[in-house]
Amino acid sequence: MSETAVPLPAPVLDPACVRSAVDERLATFLDAKAHLAAAQGFPAEVTDVLRDLVLGGGKRIRPVLCVAGWRAAGGRGDEGPVLRVAASLEMFHAFALVHDDVMDRSATRRGRPSAHEAIAARHMGRPGARRLGVDAAVLLGDLALAWSDELLHTAGVRADRFAAATVVLDGMRTELMYGQYLDLLATGRPSTDVDAALRIARFKSAKYTVERPLQLGAVLAGADAGVCAALSAFGLPLGEAFQLRDDLLGAFGDPSETGKSAAEDLHEGKHTVLLSLALRRATKSERALLTDHGPGARLGPARVARIRAVLEETGARIGVEELIRERAHQALRALDEDGLPAGAAAVLRSAASDLIELA
Amino acid sequence: MSETAVPLPAPVLDPACVRSAVDERLATFLDAKAHLAAAQGFPAEVTDVLRDLVLGGGKRIRPVLCVAGWRAAGGRGDEGPVLRVAASLEMFHAFALVHDDVMDRSATRRGRPSAHEAIAARHMGRPGARRLGVDAAVLLGDLALAWSDELLHTAGVRADRFAAATVVLDGMRTELMYGQYLDLLATGRPSTDVDAALRIARFKSAKYTVERPLQLGAVLAGADAGVCAALSAFGLPLGEAFQLRDDLLGAFGDPSETGKSAAEDLHEGKHTVLLSLALRRATKSERALLTDHGPGARLGPARVARIRAVLEETGARIGVEELIRERAHQALRALDEDGLPAGAAAVLRSAASDLIELA
Repeated sequence: MSETAVPLPAPVLDPACVRSAVDERLATFLDAKAHLAAAQGFPAEVTDVLRDLVLGGGKRIRPVLCVAGWRAAGGRGDEGPVLRVAASLEMFHAFALVHDDVMDRSATRRGRPSAHEAIAARHMGRPGARRLGVDAAVLLGDLALAWSDELLHTAGVRADRFAAATVVLDGMRTELMYGQYLDLLATGRPSTDVDAALRIARFKSAKYTVERPLQLGAVLAGADAGVCAALSAFGLPLGEAFQLRDDLLGAFGDPSETGKSAAEDLHEGKHTVLLSLALRRATKSERALLTDHGPGARLGPARVARIRAVLEETGARIGVEELIRERAHQALRALDEDGLPAGAAAVLRSAASDLIELA
Repeated sequence: MSETAVPLPAPVLDPACVRSAVDERLATFLDAKAHLAAAQGFPAEVTDVLRDLVLGGGKRIRPVLCVAGWRAAGGRGDEGPVLRVAASLEMFHAFALVHDDVMDRSATRRGRPSAHEAIAARHMGRPGARRLGVDAAVLLGDLALAWSDELLHTAGVRADRFAAATVVLDGMRTELMYGQYLDLLATGRPSTDVDAALRIARFKSAKYTVERPLQLGAVLAGADAGVCAALSAFGLPLGEAFQLRDDLLGAFGDPSETGKSAAEDLHEGKHTVLLSLALRRATKSERALLTDHGPGARLGPARVARIRAVLEETGARIGVEELIRERAHQALRALDEDGLPAGAAAVLRSAASDLIELA
């Protein structure tokens, strides 16, 4: 990474450029892996299914924020290393999605069959094809995680900054996995505990999706602890707003927009802030409607409609909208504080508007 | 790593010392993670279950071979970094065991309940406790994989050697996961294809358990491609011998010795070299006995006894013993070839005898 001695203003971030540059790296990497598999006689379905997932959709939120963090912290010049690290983050995300869909037994992702369904479909007719799909998807996710490391190892990051990057990444992974663990334990047991729901959102999403990608890019540009703290003050509330918006989509979203089945969070009995707020304000019979189905039960359309009505009537939906607004404002206010290099606020404001538009 | 200019003979490898040094590092690391979890309000069961698995048994084969590779390649002086990398390999192995047990739905590991069983037991009485155990074990394995990276990142390896180590590690992970994938696809479909069974053994075990740990240690001592190739010529046949011995244990082994349930490979319908050889020589009715149960079926003791009798009578067991001897000799002959530094052969011979005794 070459850097000028005199700081230049951070160039405007073009998310579409980041997306296409990251996609190109992911496609090249997966092509090489497919060739290796063919040469070694490994089954082609591994790279086929992973390529469909990785290149078949997704908004590249984490890569865009990683590059935004790099620019905000003064990164200039050769973007090759930061783009490859950004691609590594996206490969890591593919791992997280594959295992998340296994745990939730989600049938679709990004508008296609989820990885375990896609693998099962390839073995249809064989005894135990569904179980094979799930088990193979665990391995497929493991491979995506290993390959995210390989993308990182081959990114050409200089040694001192690589070391700083691994501190951020190691933190991110532990936080995500504990967040997922908390989510798993709470699934099927939604309660009035809004703080517990917010904690899950913070660890499995706000830190993973926003705070850590920003910091990762920043340390690749040599950011110090002060810059990382300022990015956290901006990124955490923004990430919580993003997850709260995602919770609304998980209850009210249009499958053609979310790429998941309708009302997925409701079927799964996720302990979201939305449901917690509704339970606080619900009558006894409404509470039963919201909670007395087992985890993973498929709710009929009439039941989903009645649950949605309760989420509206208790004011839970409006309450979540209010929390989103509060957090978005908190994030933008953090940009006015000291701690960030000149020009950083403009880059981050643009990234935030992109994220909120995306969510 | 400090090294002397004049090569000293490789000191004799004491596997017990390596084991206790690695265990100390693993215990310290997991203690720190348990403290972090307590401070953050994360569930203690994650580190509790992982600690029981990691510190409750295991032979530390890969760490011992990693240190052997380091010594064989001329590594001298401060063993701190190589021991921490060796601990990272063992944490990676914990990941592999947890996910392997999920895929095989194995009830026991190292003589205790497997991770998914241990987690399910902690939530007994809750609806869906078994499914929760499996899903949580997927996450637990993911965390062990992420933590193996963290152990590596904090090992204090100098930058050029770290880069060489990641090439070996990235290769190892991809090989293991494809090997596991091949194993999964072949499970429940044993055939007369001995070569296919040997390929599975090579990727999921010989390379992962022996060749790559040796090379990993070697590159940490600055080994070049020639030394790595010589270690491969030694390690691959040794690793195949090790896996073939493991196949015998999977059919005939004593659960008190293997830590797994009796005849686990037979119940699971694993496509092993042992079963391939038997199928080649079996009568039609013997073939039916060996193959006509579904994957994962629990065979009764009488059926297991009859299958074992066929494995004996077809000469499959003796055939595998012969393959093990051939490969062990091939490994030892490779030590007489050029390509290894002075003194390496003695270290590696001692590691091999330890491994065969261990297996």
